[in-house]
Amino acid sequence: MDEVRILEIKQSVFASNDREADRLRNELKEKGVFLLNLMSSPGSGKTTTLRRTIEALKDEMKIGVMEADIDSDVDARSIAKTGVKAIQLHTGGMCHLDAGMTRQGLEGLGTDDVELTILENVGNLVCPAEFDTGAVKNAMILSVPEGDDKPLKYPLMFSICDVVLINKIDVMPYFDFDLEKCREYIRMRNPAAKVIPICARTGEGIGEWAEWLRSKVRAWRG
Amino acid sequence: MDEVRILEIKQSVFASNDREADRLRNELKEKGVFLLNLMSSPGSGKTTTLRRTIEALKDEMKIGVMEADIDSDVDARSIAKTGVKAIQLHTGGMCHLDAGMTRQGLEGLGTDDVELTILENVGNLVCPAEFDTGAVKNAMILSVPEGDDKPLKYPLMFSICDVVLINKIDVMPYFDFDLEKCREYIRMRNPAAKVIPICARTGEGIGEWAEWLRSKVRAWRG
Repeated sequence: MDEVRILEIKQSVFASNDREADRLRNELKEKGVFLLNLMSSPGSGKTTTLRRTIEALKDEMKIGVMEADIDSDVDARSIAKTGVKAIQLHTGGMCHLDAGMTRQGLEGLGTDDVELTILENVGNLVCPAEFDTGAVKNAMILSVPEGDDKPLKYPLMFSICDVVLINKIDVMPYFDFDLEKCREYIRMRNPAAKVIPICARTGEGIGEWAEWLRSKVRAWRG
Repeated sequence: MDEVRILEIKQSVFASNDREADRLRNELKEKGVFLLNLMSSPGSGKTTTLRRTIEALKDEMKIGVMEADIDSDVDARSIAKTGVKAIQLHTGGMCHLDAGMTRQGLEGLGTDDVELTILENVGNLVCPAEFDTGAVKNAMILSVPEGDDKPLKYPLMFSICDVVLINKIDVMPYFDFDLEKCREYIRMRNPAAKVIPICARTGEGIGEWAEWLRSKVRAWRG
């Protein structure tokens, strides 16, 4: 379980990332593969949330995970322990993934036997928001210790996400975090975004999140 | 106190950022201005740490602050309340500041009456590390909720910083954070980096940090 495959992905050469992203999404649709792009700051709990998500859904659908990081393979090793297919993508210093890089990852992972693929993007609230990866849905995590004002400071990330998971709600008593204010700031950026408070460590809220994701995967696969 | 000046800075046009950074540093040296570049993830406590730093040093040196964000002016308004000169820089979506952008900020702030200028960079553990701003020293904050493994995942940021402040140590009991392991990971990336545990909220450790900064400012101003 300590060995995971590491794929060094290369910067893309496509002139139009948007066109390449649409092309990738169409191919995924044909193959019946749902791709979720999961983004957040460093340390907001993406990998722990992912492990909980896998626990909740792995008995009903085949899952594959791509862990993107600049360096290290700690996340892919952690995910591989859940028993699902996992690959570590190294971006060679790049701060985000675009559609071409995501395609390299999908080819490395292999999606023939996968229904739900989750890309854990590089921990970064800025650059990943600027590049369509070809994912069907974008999700982000904002953790309580980061503060309720983040939608004001990182507008693009909040505006392109279909769902915002507010993680680490168990430590809310120790931080100055106003959940209602945060919801309001998110609404300012993106009235359509679904907001789900969770605690990945304890599992709180994971049921609602898994239900959201399940319904999107079903709708996509028809 | 609710009004702060907002400067929209533009992407630089210099062919060599490194050369432009050296040029800026030389000019700062001549003028006796020390520039600190403060970096971290979103929400790790840069602004609170900055307010504590100002409290500790403002009676002995003239301080100016540049708050860089993609959007919003909450940070500059918070700093302006301390009584020091502050300006908000908007990066127009850019994920980092380079030397040319930093120069625009310094011109907007005005440094004739300033001995210590602090640039609060965009919250991002990736891109700001790739661009020399012209600062005399680079500092970063890693907060306890982000996890002790961050030096493994964001190697460049840790390798270019002269000092790493480990913030929010008051919440260590609620998180799985191993301070000794974290120190070891930082040493792997950068044996020369000074590591100072702090709690910006309560002021713990700020004395040691202020002493480090004071000594660097004095050495620079000669």
